[in-house]
Amino acid sequence: NMRILISGGAGFIGSHLVDKLMENEKNEVIVADNYFTGSKDNLKKWIGHPRFELIRHDVTEPLLIEVDQIYHLACPASPIFYKYNPVKTIKTNVIGTLNMLGLAKRVGARILLTSTSEVYGDPLIHPQPESYWGNVNPIGVRSCYDEGKRVAETLMFDYHRQHGIGQFYFPRFIEILSRLLFLTLFSVEIRIARIFNTYGPRMNIDDGRVVSNFIAQALRGEALTVQKPGTQTRSFCYVSDMVEGLMRLMEGDETGPINIGNPGEFTMVELAETVKELINPSIKIKMVENTPDDPRQRKPDITKAKEVLGWEPKVKLREGLPLMEEDFRQRLGVPK
Amino acid sequence: NMRILISGGAGFIGSHLVDKLMENEKNEVIVADNYFTGSKDNLKKWIGHPRFELIRHDVTEPLLIEVDQIYHLACPASPIFYKYNPVKTIKTNVIGTLNMLGLAKRVGARILLTSTSEVYGDPLIHPQPESYWGNVNPIGVRSCYDEGKRVAETLMFDYHRQHGIGQFYFPRFIEILSRLLFLTLFSVEIRIARIFNTYGPRMNIDDGRVVSNFIAQALRGEALTVQKPGTQTRSFCYVSDMVEGLMRLMEGDETGPINIGNPGEFTMVELAETVKELINPSIKIKMVENTPDDPRQRKPDITKAKEVLGWEPKVKLREGLPLMEEDFRQRLGVPK
Ligand SMILES: NC(=O)c1ccc[n+]([C@@H]2O[C@H](COP(=O)([O-])OP(=O)(O)OC[C@H]3O[C@@H](n4cnc5c(N)ncnc54)[C@H](O)[C@@H]3O)[C@@H](O)[C@H]2O)c1
Ligand SMILES: NC(=O)c1ccc[n+]([C@@H]2O[C@H](COP(=O)([O-])OP(=O)(O)OC[C@H]3O[C@@H](n4cnc5c(N)ncnc54)[C@H](O)[C@@H]3O)[C@@H](O)[C@H]2O)c1
Ligand SMILES: O=c1ccn([C@@H]2O[C@H](COP(=O)(O)OP(=O)(O)O)[C@@H](O)[C@H]2O)c(=O)[nH]1
Ligand SMILES: O=c1ccn([C@@H]2O[C@H](COP(=O)(O)OP(=O)(O)O)[C@@H](O)[C@H]2O)c(=O)[nH]1
Ligand SMILES: O=c1ccn([C@@H]2O[C@H](COP(=O)(O)OP(=O)(O)O)[C@@H](O)[C@H]2O)c(=O)[nH]1
Ligand SMILES: O=c1ccn([C@@H]2O[C@H](COP(=O)(O)OP(=O)(O)O)[C@@H](O)[C@H]2O)c(=O)[nH]1
Repeated sequence: NMRILISGGAGFIGSHLVDKLMENEKNEVIVADNYFTGSKDNLKKWIGHPRFELIRHDVTEPLLIEVDQIYHLACPASPIFYKYNPVKTIKTNVIGTLNMLGLAKRVGARILLTSTSEVYGDPLIHPQPESYWGNVNPIGVRSCYDEGKRVAETLMFDYHRQHGIGQFYFPRFIEILSRLLFLTLFSVEIRIARIFNTYGPRMNIDDGRVVSNFIAQALRGEALTVQKPGTQTRSFCYVSDMVEGLMRLMEGDETGPINIGNPGEFTMVELAETVKELINPSIKIKMVENTPDDPRQRKPDITKAKEVLGWEPKVKLREGLPLMEEDFRQRLGVPK
Repeated sequence: NMRILISGGAGFIGSHLVDKLMENEKNEVIVADNYFTGSKDNLKKWIGHPRFELIRHDVTEPLLIEVDQIYHLACPASPIFYKYNPVKTIKTNVIGTLNMLGLAKRVGARILLTSTSEVYGDPLIHPQPESYWGNVNPIGVRSCYDEGKRVAETLMFDYHRQHGIGQFYFPRFIEILSRLLFLTLFSVEIRIARIFNTYGPRMNIDDGRVVSNFIAQALRGEALTVQKPGTQTRSFCYVSDMVEGLMRLMEGDETGPINIGNPGEFTMVELAETVKELINPSIKIKMVENTPDDPRQRKPDITKAKEVLGWEPKVKLREGLPLMEEDFRQRLGVPK
């Protein structure tokens, strides 16, 4: 039996992960969430279930519980929300990750961090392999998220290295032996996923992300707002593929970082046209102003995920959009 | 009269800054330091002085005092020390800077952060202007320092922006008016210096930095250890020039970030040969292994410092090395 903590489990990706993990009767699932961007609604089918528990908890505070695995997702993912209180975003990423690592170390749990493609910033290499160090503005309005996640990754590796044998010095022979021993006994087992843009049911309707914006606009009969220049690209992964990738990473032997995302690349104009065609052909597309430091292109190199996790996404954009449309129709009360 | 806090004031650069600030009889100087790499010895001439105070304090804890200006230097600068406990290095940079900013906000003090040329990582643009976003490994053994300082910069700007009026929404006209008012009343006044390699008296003798290593080796009659390939470059600024630059930045109107450093660029082999020639012509030079992620080149573009601070370094390497030699002779007990 396995006790699994999911921080941020009331959010978009987290709640789908809960659904999947609850399918296995050997799993006990605990969610810790402060409901900043998530909601109990996303978990309503599990509330009261004997293998499920929901804790109102902010990860910037210490958490004392006993678990075997930690999926650490807690962090607002949408620019609107992470820019709302940038200092809080940094605290969530840094102090929050520190607390989760302290917990992992204390109880000997394996911990997976959901990092982000934003660690590559406005990338100068395309597509982005994990070895790319990124091109990130340290002092811009998006920095609280981008730099916050980068430091969260640093902390993960520092716990992994430091709570092995890093600081001790022994004769060469003993060093190698004891390094092996210490690493096995004390090192924090880490997994880092670099998640690329993900979409699907339960996304916040008004969080300003492009897929949710376009679908909501199409259903409300409003023009689709393409931010200039409209030639910027993203790669969109359907949430069930994402959850599958995260679980494989957790169960596998590779620490990462590993890119998890769908390599299908679209310009924002193409995305708007696809949404228009699939959901509401009578809708208009209008160009609007963009926000600062918007990355011009982004597409995962998933060679590593394929090789070490045997994972690749299955759901194409044209298949995923209609699944999301259904969910949005229900929540917006717009029947077909 | 001006009450000035210097966090990390018992360290190398901090103690020289104290000396300079104490020259002005209108200044009251308070040093907060945990003595991790600094020492009371560096401040012995001021201990007991009525305008001086020394507090044993770790910046990762809150500090409640009343001051008008904060020079926030607390952070180990040498790789040996900042790698010793990487998690602590991140805490010092992130939680330490957060606390200093909280203090600055509460008392309305102006705060200067000593950031570093390491935010440029292993730079792909040479020399480095302030607008360059850098090339930093997020998960390497130096990342605790490099990424820690980058987030410290992010926090500075977020306090500067956020504690203006960022989150409120008003009609356009009122917004502009009140933005001006709020920025004047509540915004934290920040200054960021990106310091390039600095040398001079009071450097830790065994902290593994290249100038202190070479001088100590030359005086002890040991071979100078040039780390491979030896063609990597650095630019070395004498500490009195550095202190002058920091004070001008604090007093001026520009937030920064501003590079402060000496644009004279030397390979490590050239540096070794200069030390040999000036200090001990009979000494050998030997090539040794390097450490991971060592930047291949580094040289500040100081156009901005010249323009907005009217500052440029005065002391050449060949003038500064003998001044440092004298100090090291005394501390090592090697008379001329
Ligand atoms: N959705 C994407 O496209 C995407 C892309 C890259 C990375 N990610 C990462 O995946 C993770 C989940 O993203 P998501 O899309 O589900 O976002 P989300 O905003 O829907 O979920 C985040 C959850 O974390 C919770 N949370 C935020 N701050 C918290 C705190 N201080 N303490 C406790 N709980 C807190 C929120 O209430 C929410 O339930 C995040 O770490 C995000 O950075 C997402
Ligand atoms: N010396 C350089 O070449 C150089 C280059 C770039 C940036 N800097 C920056 O300049 C500043 C001063 O550097 P320095 O060369 O004088 O280094 P230093 O190590 O001599 O001084 C740092 C001081 O901070 C103190 N300190 C460290 N952690 C602390 C904590 N948690 N709480 C309180 N005090 C703490 C140390 O005891 C020491 O007195 C640092 O912020 C460093 O990152 C220095
Ligand atoms: O079960 C635990 C153990 C630790 N922590 C927090 O994790 C952080 C890091 O803990 P660690 O023991 O690694 O180092 P510390 O910071 O306590 O020296 C600390 O802030 C702890 O409060 C936690 O939340 N739950
Ligand atoms: O209504 C919108 C919202 C976003 N975007 C663009 O869509 C891309 C993805 O933005 P999102 O906020 O969804 O994700 P992120 O920038 O974090 O990848 C960016 O280039 C935005 O400029 C857009 O064209 N219209
Ligand atoms: O005089 C002060 C005021 C605040 N802080 C610390 O600075 C940090 C940030 O304070 P702020 O008021 O900005 O935000 P908070 O984190 O308290 O919401 C907190 O950890 C405080 O403990 C401090 O050390 N001295
Ligand atoms: O005994 C030494 C110590 C350092 N270095 C080199 O000197 C440069 C500056 O190293 P330092 O640690 O002084 O500063 P930083 O790397 O932080 O600029 C690096 O390229 C090191 O490889 C060297 O050749 N011999």
